[in-house]
Amino acid sequence: MAPSGSLMGTMETHIGMSRHASSTDIDTYMASLGAEARRASALMRCIDTGRKNAALRAMAQHLEASRARLIEANARDLQRGREAGLDAALLDRLALNETRFNTMLEGLAQVAALPDPVGEIDGLRSRPSGIQVGQMRVPLGVIGIIYESRPNVTVEAASLCLKAGNACILRGGSEARESNAAIAECITAGLVDAGLPEAAVQVVATTDRAAVGRLIAMPEYVDVIIPRGGKSLIERISRDARVPVIKHLDGVCHVYIDASADRDKALAIAVNAKTHRYGTCNTMETLLIDAPVAAELLPSLAAAYAEHGVELRGCERTREVLPGVAVASEDDWFAEYLAPVLAIRVVDGVDAAIAHIERYGSHHTDAIVSESYSLARRFMAEVDSSSVMVNASTRFADGFEYGLGAEIGISTDKLHARGPVGLEGLTTRKYVVLGDGHVRG
Amino acid sequence: MAPSGSLMGTMETHIGMSRHASSTDIDTYMASLGAEARRASALMRCIDTGRKNAALRAMAQHLEASRARLIEANARDLQRGREAGLDAALLDRLALNETRFNTMLEGLAQVAALPDPVGEIDGLRSRPSGIQVGQMRVPLGVIGIIYESRPNVTVEAASLCLKAGNACILRGGSEARESNAAIAECITAGLVDAGLPEAAVQVVATTDRAAVGRLIAMPEYVDVIIPRGGKSLIERISRDARVPVIKHLDGVCHVYIDASADRDKALAIAVNAKTHRYGTCNTMETLLIDAPVAAELLPSLAAAYAEHGVELRGCERTREVLPGVAVASEDDWFAEYLAPVLAIRVVDGVDAAIAHIERYGSHHTDAIVSESYSLARRFMAEVDSSSVMVNASTRFADGFEYGLGAEIGISTDKLHARGPVGLEGLTTRKYVVLGDGHVRG
Repeated sequence: MAPSGSLMGTMETHIGMSRHASSTDIDTYMASLGAEARRASALMRCIDTGRKNAALRAMAQHLEASRARLIEANARDLQRGREAGLDAALLDRLALNETRFNTMLEGLAQVAALPDPVGEIDGLRSRPSGIQVGQMRVPLGVIGIIYESRPNVTVEAASLCLKAGNACILRGGSEARESNAAIAECITAGLVDAGLPEAAVQVVATTDRAAVGRLIAMPEYVDVIIPRGGKSLIERISRDARVPVIKHLDGVCHVYIDASADRDKALAIAVNAKTHRYGTCNTMETLLIDAPVAAELLPSLAAAYAEHGVELRGCERTREVLPGVAVASEDDWFAEYLAPVLAIRVVDGVDAAIAHIERYGSHHTDAIVSESYSLARRFMAEVDSSSVMVNASTRFADGFEYGLGAEIGISTDKLHARGPVGLEGLTTRKYVVLGDGHVRG
Repeated sequence: MAPSGSLMGTMETHIGMSRHASSTDIDTYMASLGAEARRASALMRCIDTGRKNAALRAMAQHLEASRARLIEANARDLQRGREAGLDAALLDRLALNETRFNTMLEGLAQVAALPDPVGEIDGLRSRPSGIQVGQMRVPLGVIGIIYESRPNVTVEAASLCLKAGNACILRGGSEARESNAAIAECITAGLVDAGLPEAAVQVVATTDRAAVGRLIAMPEYVDVIIPRGGKSLIERISRDARVPVIKHLDGVCHVYIDASADRDKALAIAVNAKTHRYGTCNTMETLLIDAPVAAELLPSLAAAYAEHGVELRGCERTREVLPGVAVASEDDWFAEYLAPVLAIRVVDGVDAAIAHIERYGSHHTDAIVSESYSLARRFMAEVDSSSVMVNASTRFADGFEYGLGAEIGISTDKLHARGPVGLEGLTTRKYVVLGDGHVRG
């Protein structure tokens, strides 16, 4: 998982001691991870599908065989986390219980079962010059992933990068360091079993924050950075990175209920989009409702939200129908609550809805509920979000629901990958030209 | 083309006077261009194909009607350039002669004739949940293009951005300022004729370099920057940009002649790849030749290159066959000559060729000449370049030759667009989800 020798010894000491190395040590260490990854990526590019799948299955076997040891390591991380006063949500993410462990193993099997995107050639066409031109899907190269203290992400990220033919450098949250180190050993063992280079997956073996600063600034070794975590972390990484970043910022998602909407569909979607899960990025944060149906629909919606314990904050026109609702401030329209809170605004038709989404939204996922063919078509074309939906809950914006088979994250960027990112987002395409002695005239 | 009012007046004065505005003026001016472009891009997203094509045709009409005036403006730019001591190559690029003018008009007609990529939905599939999911091709938004003093690029860039549904901000080289200002008027007139927002295409009306610094650092207004020009300019822009950059760095392209190659194809390709044009990025800069055929092929190759006046620099083994050839230094293997100079290296088989390309190449375009199915397949898979060719000249790496219909540049990046970039590279894809009241369970 990491270069051997004295430096690695230093790093291991650091893990144990939780102390910081000098910045020169960190620079040397990260550069050596980078160089190893670059070398491994050149090999990984050409590894056939069967061997990659064998490595994924071997990793699962090693994880299963080490289950007790892993759960113990995780227990020590949890204990340290509790002592350090981590909040319940963080501790929950950190925990590797039996269910989550099984899901992690299933994930490996699922990724092994996915079609290999590498080598696929699209659109091979004959040109007037006589050459044939197509585009071959190929790995990106070396991917750096920076994530929070969720040990299962270590396995998820490693498996997706590997299946797409990349080498990866993984930097998990320091609270999960013992869990990650134990998982890393199983991943390495799986790579070795399948005859793949150990440096195909490297877990950064220091909790020093300077390691992140180096990882995102080595364009000679790293082709793309994928940060997963809180908005401020991602913003900082995007600002400082010297390599491209595939990022996910906030999800301020909207459902717009048009006057033409079917009442039952509108209620079902508006309730599901808010209450199915509160902490996810594709949860609706603001409900927009067309003025002619506000008086009719808002009371039923309010009753349903009350049942789920959702706090409502509304515009003045909402409060005319629902006087008990708190006033929504300008900040509420921008808010990603990630909590049982919902902003509601009465708008005048689809144009006002689109204007609101354009001004306050985060271009993540937005839905219209409407029976109007023309309005549905307009909403789909005009709303500039990574997912645009007609008569469906925003909660569907997800790699599994979309059929990607797996998801490394959801991109709110426009370039390269937009929306849920699966294996394809971890690849790129190069042109291939087949000739028979052809020259340009 | 630019906001009206007093600021614009200031800027026009600056053009005339070739003086620098205060940085506050420039900041305000660029922010206003950005805000106008952002607004225009929301409209452009939804403009139908017919209207976009009408604008392109109207631009061509206005350019044709202003031909004499444009060529006069260009003559003044050329005169000033000669007085400033511009070299012959720069003056040639700056010149807008009748032939180039006609090519520019033909370009507009060709872009109008291209299929509109916007709105195309790929892979709409039904999912087990009942929703249908597909990906719709949509404009990127606002594109900033920074280029050298080539007035025809103003029309080319504007037409491609417009056809792909984007707003653009164009910053051409200061030596072409009168030509560009005159072209900008024709573009604006064409937009107005077709009822499109004037700010869909804005030409930066100041030669102050600070404008470039601002243009690349306004993520709120600009979605992507495409720099065209010398390597140092592009490196500087990539380093300082606060938005994604689609860039073209150098083209150190290789042809590898394998021992299995057909002799005639090998000679034809090696000669064409070097001598068809010297100054282009897809020109071969290093020839790799398999040891068993070096003695047989190098003399014929050397004779052909001598006829074209190409200077050769070779490794020691090359010089054993061709004693008169100069010694190639380590720098030669890295060199993008863009000139009638060629480095030649004798290598031991395809592995050594691939290793050389990996070490010294720029991942632009590399070709193998071989009759071996297995080696061709390996070369295609293992060489990590934007274009990989079998038995074809590297000179084919070009948007027109590949059938893209047009080309905004060739990307040496891996993410988003790799290789020749046409209309598709100026778009992105968002997910569309069609349901019928579907909620997530």
